[in-house]
Amino acid sequence: MDRLQHLIQELRVFVSERDWSQFHDPKNLAMAVGSEAGELVSELRWVKSEQSDAFCQDETQRARLADEIGDVAITLCLLADRVGLDVVDCMTQKLAKNRLKYPVELSRGRAHKPGSSE
Amino acid sequence: MDRLQHLIQELRVFVSERDWSQFHDPKNLAMAVGSEAGELVSELRWVKSEQSDAFCQDETQRARLADEIGDVAITLCLLADRVGLDVVDCMTQKLAKNRLKYPVELSRGRAHKPGSSE
Amino acid sequence: MDRLQHLIQELRVFVSERDWSQFHDPKNLAMAVGSEAGELVSELRWVKSEQSDAFCQDETQRARLADEIGDVAITLCLLADRVGLDVVDCMTQKLAKNRLKYPVELSRGRAHKPGSSE
Amino acid sequence: MDRLQHLIQELRVFVSERDWSQFHDPKNLAMAVGSEAGELVSELRWVKSEQSDAFCQDETQRARLADEIGDVAITLCLLADRVGLDVVDCMTQKLAKNRLKYPVELSRGRAHKPGSSE
Repeated sequence: MDRLQHLIQELRVFVSERDWSQFHDPKNLAMAVGSEAGELVSELRWVKSEQSDAFCQDETQRARLADEIGDVAITLCLLADRVGLDVVDCMTQKLAKNRLKYPVELSRGRAHKPGSSE
Repeated sequence: MDRLQHLIQELRVFVSERDWSQFHDPKNLAMAVGSEAGELVSELRWVKSEQSDAFCQDETQRARLADEIGDVAITLCLLADRVGLDVVDCMTQKLAKNRLKYPVELSRGRAHKPGSSE
Repeated sequence: MDRLQHLIQELRVFVSERDWSQFHDPKNLAMAVGSEAGELVSELRWVKSEQSDAFCQDETQRARLADEIGDVAITLCLLADRVGLDVVDCMTQKLAKNRLKYPVELSRGRAHKPGSSE
Repeated sequence: MDRLQHLIQELRVFVSERDWSQFHDPKNLAMAVGSEAGELVSELRWVKSEQSDAFCQDETQRARLADEIGDVAITLCLLADRVGLDVVDCMTQKLAKNRLKYPVELSRGRAHKPGSSE
């Protein structure tokens, strides 16, 4: 079992011990992902684009960012697990679609169209 | 190398081939996570809580959900990788904090406080 | 001058007194809207759909919700004002589009399509 | 009746004609605000901070932004109206709190603390 699978097993135990699966229907977990993503966005909202790499190397800020990335990832894995999807499979399939949607020769060095999905 | 690490390697190649790292500073990637999370929330906004499990088993809806979960996970991994954080480490450390924050005996069967972070 | 216009004038003074316009470029303000919206979503994430009306009539919860609605509205007005758009005009024009997109006879009593924008 | 109140009256008619109040409980509307905010964030995710003012003056982009601002504002007004809150009152009360939280002399020219709410 790889590290992510092991972590997902631990999440299941965490939820089960607290009897929280009653709160973890897909709708509620999607909202949890949305609110945790909002906290992640919040961390970087007042930083200039070109200073954001350096900002994230600051030790305090880095720890805050790790917390928020952890929160988004945990809620996302809880959601995927609840509906019986494998997160890495979802990523692999989406990456394959993105390769078709953004061919190298047409996408090289060009910002994605505003409003287009990744 | 486990499946997630392998996928992250593929993401690096995907970005590099398109010369997109210039657009992928942490601020922009945090925004990408936020907008993809919004699309995930959108999928479940008109479904009732108690029907959301069944809704997610519908084949068409399931494919849409897999797409959105893939998008959030991809942008989140791109962000973590950009700042030099390991997503599974972030989850492991956050889970350890959550165990302290929500002791089994005090949390069992009780909804998390509204407004509290996961 | 109506109440909203008056409030927007007060927001301008609030920002100017603190010399914050340097932080309030459209990108940063869009992120602020996103993170405040995440806090609003957070308030209702563990409540069941059919209990959410009653939940919002609870006095404590109502005050929290008013705070979050205020935050989203303030950041949205700051963004609109920064780029020279009038929020009520934006709403009026979008409502006109929505009337065409969702004709009464085709939309009556049917949930909006999942994934479609409002 | 001022322009915003008039628009809110029109929103009520729009919802009533389509018999959509059954879908518009507070939980669902909070999700709608979250997903529309995600679309707004999406518009500006690949633009650099210092180019975002100019970007928003481009005619095509400006129209897209007006659409997204309209969507967030409409869903927010629907939510406030559903729970019996007045959006301008919410803003006024939050602005009063922000004046206390960010005194002029302590806040002048200093970016809000990362992670703090507006």
